[in-house]
Amino acid sequence: MPARFGADVGGTSVRAALVGADGALLTPLLDLPRSPDLIGQLADLYAESAERAGSSVTVVGAGLAIPGAVDPATGRIGSVPTAPALRGLDPAEVRLAPGLPLGVCNDANAAVLAERAYGAARGARHVVGLFVGTGVGGGVVVDGALLTGRAGLAAEIGHLVVDPDGPPCPCGGRGCLEQYASGTAIAAAYTAATGRSVTGAAEVALAARAGDPQARAAYAGAGRLLGVAAAGLANLFNPEAVVLGGGVAAVWDLFGDDLVRAVERHTMPLTRRGLRVAPGRLGRAAGVLGAALAATG
Amino acid sequence: MPARFGADVGGTSVRAALVGADGALLTPLLDLPRSPDLIGQLADLYAESAERAGSSVTVVGAGLAIPGAVDPATGRIGSVPTAPALRGLDPAEVRLAPGLPLGVCNDANAAVLAERAYGAARGARHVVGLFVGTGVGGGVVVDGALLTGRAGLAAEIGHLVVDPDGPPCPCGGRGCLEQYASGTAIAAAYTAATGRSVTGAAEVALAARAGDPQARAAYAGAGRLLGVAAAGLANLFNPEAVVLGGGVAAVWDLFGDDLVRAVERHTMPLTRRGLRVAPGRLGRAAGVLGAALAATG
Repeated sequence: MPARFGADVGGTSVRAALVGADGALLTPLLDLPRSPDLIGQLADLYAESAERAGSSVTVVGAGLAIPGAVDPATGRIGSVPTAPALRGLDPAEVRLAPGLPLGVCNDANAAVLAERAYGAARGARHVVGLFVGTGVGGGVVVDGALLTGRAGLAAEIGHLVVDPDGPPCPCGGRGCLEQYASGTAIAAAYTAATGRSVTGAAEVALAARAGDPQARAAYAGAGRLLGVAAAGLANLFNPEAVVLGGGVAAVWDLFGDDLVRAVERHTMPLTRRGLRVAPGRLGRAAGVLGAALAATG
Repeated sequence: MPARFGADVGGTSVRAALVGADGALLTPLLDLPRSPDLIGQLADLYAESAERAGSSVTVVGAGLAIPGAVDPATGRIGSVPTAPALRGLDPAEVRLAPGLPLGVCNDANAAVLAERAYGAARGARHVVGLFVGTGVGGGVVVDGALLTGRAGLAAEIGHLVVDPDGPPCPCGGRGCLEQYASGTAIAAAYTAATGRSVTGAAEVALAARAGDPQARAAYAGAGRLLGVAAAGLANLFNPEAVVLGGGVAAVWDLFGDDLVRAVERHTMPLTRRGLRVAPGRLGRAAGVLGAALAATG
């Protein structure tokens, strides 16, 4: 059975698995803290996955999702803020095993490709993906092709401007969506409202489930802003589907209604017609599945 | 000499000319109030242009720019709010003269195609065009191709949301960019600040040129918001060029600095690198030139 190896390099962890042609995970999703020798670690993860899969599986390619940009002209990795060692790497020169070529893709781009192939946007030719975790990432498919822009930097949905006079953003701008609607922002909003410090948005979600009105309000506020952004993106891309993925998508019940209401309020009527707005279906595996789609070979 | 006929149907007027392969106007730009028999009027404008051009010019196609949507799948005209008679028209079935096929294109899309071919974005493969007149229109070129979306409704830049609680917009939404940064909005902002009613943004521009600080502020405010929108669009499309066209572009000196400053403040550093931000160069002829580019034949 043919398979592709997919690996998703996060800020602090690496996930990997072998993926079948139909998007099924053929091996358990390995999830490890990132090692300083990232390429060595990827080779190890590949070897372990291949061993687990056994001899009935033939690996025909490998793909890597990275939290950074890939130059669409050269295929080389550009800026990767959390993994500077990857910068300038030409994946065509890397082999995780003899004869195994490597493809590479931005992680949010990989996730939208996976949701389109196997998940919430199946069959759509025009898709906008918002991926909300620690930050807010984005991926856009235009007429079946990834939107890359001139230098692979496109689809930075987290850096749409919500308030030009808002707080400074690490990107250098001000008032970016990521400052209001990321997991980090949800936790900060809750702390600002209650004076209670939390470990992150997951803790706020637990409080919201337990009925804490301020925790619910933190999620509702983020949902509304994500919906306003999604509406603007719908007016811009006229897609079939808008998918909200990433860690925060796991608690869609805490903000999905607010998000959908804002989309309905701010999307132009003809554009809204038939528009699907849905949480991602692939969860933690989206990046790995998308990386496998980006595999060459 | 081969030429294409281009016609730009506005809300109340029609412009037309014959265009050479290099984008030169081969006949004077005719500009008439729109007649109820629009197709008949277009045929007349074609006949007049062909007569003026004389026998050295061979017309090989005709194109129409419309203030509405074109279905990318069928080529048929969709919704055209200011010209309902065009709705459902299949341009392939229209002949302005025997043997002369007709192409059709959204007007802001036509304008960005023209600016890319002959104007401020020459040679760029990724371009965002904002067209500011009575309203705010948009056109986007992604890797050399027009962004159409699923149903030809994409690139509605005027309906990005500036303030979710802002004033209602005719589109059905609220707080759309068009409510803050169109010619109409510039005139309204001036009237709100001074109590003086004006005929439109052109009158405010005259006042600004004469040193009226509130007129200058109305343009500066619009420029800043257009710059914030342009920055978001740059972060989204990672283009080589952002072009600001339409009637308001003629007074770039009144808001260009504010626009560029906002772009610099809100665009991600790598995306900003080498990004051109410039006023359109084609003025009133942009739609006609773009329509000729959309000509079939």
